[in-house]
Amino acid sequence: MSSIWGNKLKISIFGESHGPAIGVVIDGLPAGETIDRAALLDFMTRRAPGHNAYSTQRREPDVPQFLSGILDGRTTGSPLCAIIENKNQHSGDYRELDIHPRPGHADYTAFLRYGGHADMRGGGHFSGRLTAPLCIAGGIALQLLVRRGVTVGAHIAAIGGINDRSYPAVNLTTEVLLAPGQKPFPVLDDQSGAEMQAAIQAAKAAQDSLGGVVEGAILGLPGGLGDPIFDGVENRLAQLLFGIPAVKGVEFGSGFAAAQMRGSRHNDSFVIQDGRVATVTNRHGGILGGITSGMPVLFRAAFKPTPSIAAPQATVNLQTMEAVPLEIKGRHDPCIVPRAVPCVEAAAALVALELLL
Amino acid sequence: MSSIWGNKLKISIFGESHGPAIGVVIDGLPAGETIDRAALLDFMTRRAPGHNAYSTQRREPDVPQFLSGILDGRTTGSPLCAIIENKNQHSGDYRELDIHPRPGHADYTAFLRYGGHADMRGGGHFSGRLTAPLCIAGGIALQLLVRRGVTVGAHIAAIGGINDRSYPAVNLTTEVLLAPGQKPFPVLDDQSGAEMQAAIQAAKAAQDSLGGVVEGAILGLPGGLGDPIFDGVENRLAQLLFGIPAVKGVEFGSGFAAAQMRGSRHNDSFVIQDGRVATVTNRHGGILGGITSGMPVLFRAAFKPTPSIAAPQATVNLQTMEAVPLEIKGRHDPCIVPRAVPCVEAAAALVALELLL
Amino acid sequence: MSSIWGNKLKISIFGESHGPAIGVVIDGLPAGETIDRAALLDFMTRRAPGHNAYSTQRREPDVPQFLSGILDGRTTGSPLCAIIENKNQHSGDYRELDIHPRPGHADYTAFLRYGGHADMRGGGHFSGRLTAPLCIAGGIALQLLVRRGVTVGAHIAAIGGINDRSYPAVNLTTEVLLAPGQKPFPVLDDQSGAEMQAAIQAAKAAQDSLGGVVEGAILGLPGGLGDPIFDGVENRLAQLLFGIPAVKGVEFGSGFAAAQMRGSRHNDSFVIQDGRVATVTNRHGGILGGITSGMPVLFRAAFKPTPSIAAPQATVNLQTMEAVPLEIKGRHDPCIVPRAVPCVEAAAALVALELLL
Amino acid sequence: MSSIWGNKLKISIFGESHGPAIGVVIDGLPAGETIDRAALLDFMTRRAPGHNAYSTQRREPDVPQFLSGILDGRTTGSPLCAIIENKNQHSGDYRELDIHPRPGHADYTAFLRYGGHADMRGGGHFSGRLTAPLCIAGGIALQLLVRRGVTVGAHIAAIGGINDRSYPAVNLTTEVLLAPGQKPFPVLDDQSGAEMQAAIQAAKAAQDSLGGVVEGAILGLPGGLGDPIFDGVENRLAQLLFGIPAVKGVEFGSGFAAAQMRGSRHNDSFVIQDGRVATVTNRHGGILGGITSGMPVLFRAAFKPTPSIAAPQATVNLQTMEAVPLEIKGRHDPCIVPRAVPCVEAAAALVALELLL
Repeated sequence: MSSIWGNKLKISIFGESHGPAIGVVIDGLPAGETIDRAALLDFMTRRAPGHNAYSTQRREPDVPQFLSGILDGRTTGSPLCAIIENKNQHSGDYRELDIHPRPGHADYTAFLRYGGHADMRGGGHFSGRLTAPLCIAGGIALQLLVRRGVTVGAHIAAIGGINDRSYPAVNLTTEVLLAPGQKPFPVLDDQSGAEMQAAIQAAKAAQDSLGGVVEGAILGLPGGLGDPIFDGVENRLAQLLFGIPAVKGVEFGSGFAAAQMRGSRHNDSFVIQDGRVATVTNRHGGILGGITSGMPVLFRAAFKPTPSIAAPQATVNLQTMEAVPLEIKGRHDPCIVPRAVPCVEAAAALVALELLL
Repeated sequence: MSSIWGNKLKISIFGESHGPAIGVVIDGLPAGETIDRAALLDFMTRRAPGHNAYSTQRREPDVPQFLSGILDGRTTGSPLCAIIENKNQHSGDYRELDIHPRPGHADYTAFLRYGGHADMRGGGHFSGRLTAPLCIAGGIALQLLVRRGVTVGAHIAAIGGINDRSYPAVNLTTEVLLAPGQKPFPVLDDQSGAEMQAAIQAAKAAQDSLGGVVEGAILGLPGGLGDPIFDGVENRLAQLLFGIPAVKGVEFGSGFAAAQMRGSRHNDSFVIQDGRVATVTNRHGGILGGITSGMPVLFRAAFKPTPSIAAPQATVNLQTMEAVPLEIKGRHDPCIVPRAVPCVEAAAALVALELLL
Repeated sequence: MSSIWGNKLKISIFGESHGPAIGVVIDGLPAGETIDRAALLDFMTRRAPGHNAYSTQRREPDVPQFLSGILDGRTTGSPLCAIIENKNQHSGDYRELDIHPRPGHADYTAFLRYGGHADMRGGGHFSGRLTAPLCIAGGIALQLLVRRGVTVGAHIAAIGGINDRSYPAVNLTTEVLLAPGQKPFPVLDDQSGAEMQAAIQAAKAAQDSLGGVVEGAILGLPGGLGDPIFDGVENRLAQLLFGIPAVKGVEFGSGFAAAQMRGSRHNDSFVIQDGRVATVTNRHGGILGGITSGMPVLFRAAFKPTPSIAAPQATVNLQTMEAVPLEIKGRHDPCIVPRAVPCVEAAAALVALELLL
Repeated sequence: MSSIWGNKLKISIFGESHGPAIGVVIDGLPAGETIDRAALLDFMTRRAPGHNAYSTQRREPDVPQFLSGILDGRTTGSPLCAIIENKNQHSGDYRELDIHPRPGHADYTAFLRYGGHADMRGGGHFSGRLTAPLCIAGGIALQLLVRRGVTVGAHIAAIGGINDRSYPAVNLTTEVLLAPGQKPFPVLDDQSGAEMQAAIQAAKAAQDSLGGVVEGAILGLPGGLGDPIFDGVENRLAQLLFGIPAVKGVEFGSGFAAAQMRGSRHNDSFVIQDGRVATVTNRHGGILGGITSGMPVLFRAAFKPTPSIAAPQATVNLQTMEAVPLEIKGRHDPCIVPRAVPCVEAAAALVALELLL
């Protein structure tokens, strides 16, 4: 019933976009783990707005401040709390959102859920800004994973109908997996990336926005992790991925394409490779019966286009119950997919770490 | 870490395909609710094998036996346990599966997870047969929902690349929603249904199998239900849907198609309709920010093709670590999608009931 | 909100005293563990009624029937479900209890909670009979613990004001710990036991009943298990112990006596013993800050006297809202404490196993 | 596995005694609830050290700072995070504690649990200081409860063997319940209170410490709340109460005294009073079968004496594994029981609110 996730590793996210601070409590981290703050900041920066042309110019440093759980740069084993203070709080007449709900946003449903008491300035607790605490937790998880031989990466698979190459499903290497994350625009194929950026600019010029798909992978997870039925790797990862605002679909391995295949084509034959059991292909996405097979875990998440667009829209006044025109002001990302890439990595890292603990 | 789901309503599923019995404990049902056993059996029958030409002929009655939680046909408020005895247990040499894992099945991952101790006869705890207890729980939930004005339905949206019509996203009526479930082959458009059945027969004749997509909807849920971030309606529904064997993708509203849209096309404008707030279109699938909007909840689940195919396949011997040919015997559904429709309804009903309680 | 307990090891108890069956689902048991059915039956027999003079003569075999999770006498890793069929169901006019609630029973509170729909025959889901599934789970846990070097035992510490010796707090051996459980009347000092039995007979003759205290201990748990604040060993054990009907108090180590001590007397000094850290005394009961110290875990649970007494009592008619006399018929244990001893062991075993997993 | 408690209302406590801040995230608070900060501060002050002669003079303001979940003095419905910055951090040579564990403290068990990485300065996450966030959560819960007609109170029932009067078990009024909390030394009978204070001073003079008992009550809870077996009111309250450092025993109603009673004396007869069902006596402490009866909920918690005493003690050096003398410096409460009273109220308030939500 809550903004809390997990079993052995618990993540409790709090904060509103324009409140005093946003943050996360991570419960269950092993003690004695070194946290590299610089590496964490680098990871956070990939999510932060304003670091390139295609995203909003509002600059927020997003520097996590640790309140507990760390001593001398190492985890203590107690719950780790990290916060980010909200410095640019433009309060304005924040009640307007409640009265004139923006299409595609949670304004209206939050109004119903919280009886008009939610702090919806900037999207409130539903804001994409709340993925910053997710990235703190996920960024820390990534550091622990690397020491355990597990790598997580993601890239933009598609934006506005333009596709990047896919990860190789079988022979995916750490280098290929991590390469997109080191680029300002996280794709495998920079030519496709250039086309995507042009599409974003075109949408922006048209006062419009674009959606897209992020593909992620986890390398190095041993086989035999996860549980059947409700607690498989897919169930857990889906629960986290749908926690990222704007995600409307999640698929693993062949995903929706599987629905069009025959079994003879879809089944991944088992083989012995380098003395180990492997599959020749990887349409199962590294998960069978909810449990890892030892092959790369592959998944994709579909993001809807940014609902905040500059073009005029239609909505209603919830008090007078009359139709009203709506014009959304301020700067907004015409496409949040590039910034969503580290969020997807964060979600996957948390699941991978929980599986390993 | 388990075969347990839920918060206010908890579902604990147990059993192995060829063990003495499979069953479910439902904890959190309100007291005093009438359970219509005949209606429940009808619902179970939709999932049961052998009730028509395109599914396996192995006939199992699947009559739930209530061990607790019901007195004089009404719920007592205590945990309800229902079991189905496994009558047709063909034990055979059940260890063979562990040694020669079938492609696309959980044989290999279960071997890793349970160290060769799992009872994998007939797929064990990973068998599609375990959706029978899910349907007991979901079938009971459906009965409670109807009394609360909520209707759940699903249909085959696609099999082998042949598409059924989609539900109308905005003006979906109870009649349209429930119509497919009353047919032997649950589609909206019977012509498409006939083509799908022909495709299934063709796949069967080719010793092969087909995958497909199930579309589901929930009507009548009031707006304002669900919680942000990790506990939204999408998160919960995805967690349950990925609990149905063979599901490889889940999407809500426009889903993956949203990734190709612009915001101006994807956003659903708010309007006043019959004195209430509604949206002109329903690409959000009745959920914004994880919370219901009062519009129909729409979702789709992709099923991979049945991994058990009669055609010869390649696998390995886990003891000798050598490649071996594999031939799967027995009768298997060439396409489990028709039987998966009530399972999808069951999953949605459980989420809907938990939201209402 | 439920009859479910645990995290890594989950126990879901179901059933009503006079319903078709009672049982338990255990989720999270490691795979490949041998279950010794004869040993489990022996353990169950210690809880069963009618095996000696001081308890009710109603003979129930309480033979668990395994529905899942076991193959060839070993756990499969999937949820284990075991049931006990209720053979002696005397339905009678079971609605009378709802109308004339028995003092000290849950009849009235269940009436409020479930609106008169609860199956309260024989106490329903609140019956002491529901400790049989707890003992199935606990009895299995005990077998796994022994293989891991952990021993759990309990004895009657007091009945009706007559005290048994206490366990030695520091040098408690496995032999001393397990000795009471092998006797028909589980005490350390048989002379005290004889006095207790005489007191029980006297209470019975007076149409009355007695309460008592059970002392339990866990030996062999390594130090460093448990978690701070809400998830310490005390918290977990208390949550389970208060799940046994009639328990009104739980204490650890010095418990309530600590409230009368000075710190200089209460503190347990650390020493090196056989090359290991130990404490000279064990007033902390093997737990500091919620975490095991490696010393014996010591605890006590207070049981109220059996509320079912033959003597006439006063109650009300919930329909007419008038005072009515009450006479409870049937045979009832004048003291449930002897039969509660294995239940306390079962609860402790489940906590100990969860700590070790 | 964690410092998180609850289902509908979730409390996540974080922080170490000498870290940057301690705090709490409360998830599940209803939206639109006014939070009276002044009243909350008053409540916090009752727990704070240094506000009278018998407690340590280290003055900490303990002013909660709200980071989220509150707007214009009302709850928003999103997770509420409140922190208290630790201003008086005396770091010193904080590693010494790890090497020379203090008897009665969690130093040694935390060393085992966290491999020497815990921040144990001032007791770290195990410090009594962590009850401040509990009191923030509980103090907020108290405010919501009052509006729902529920009152929670507690008093010192005993210190060092000197007893206060007990609450009247049946006719307990709000005035009597709340009176002790308004006194600097929270007792019902000031004469006993004076004797207790003298005993505390005597213990302090002797470089020693005292334990005691806190009695609490909840008034106004409707009957029919709570769940059977593992999730009754006793189970939940015990789980929280054992989360307060130094608690070694918890009992409800007659508690351990029940063990010495006969059923005829212990059973509380039902009567009609003012047109409602009540019990003549209240030895059941307002809970039967885990469910509230509508009578006052009564409970007691036993606190061990403060383990930090000025008198010399014996311990070991965990590195050299040799016996060493120990002298604890700094000022410490010779008896934490007076300050524990609001903590007990906080715990009870959280359970009561969760039951009502």
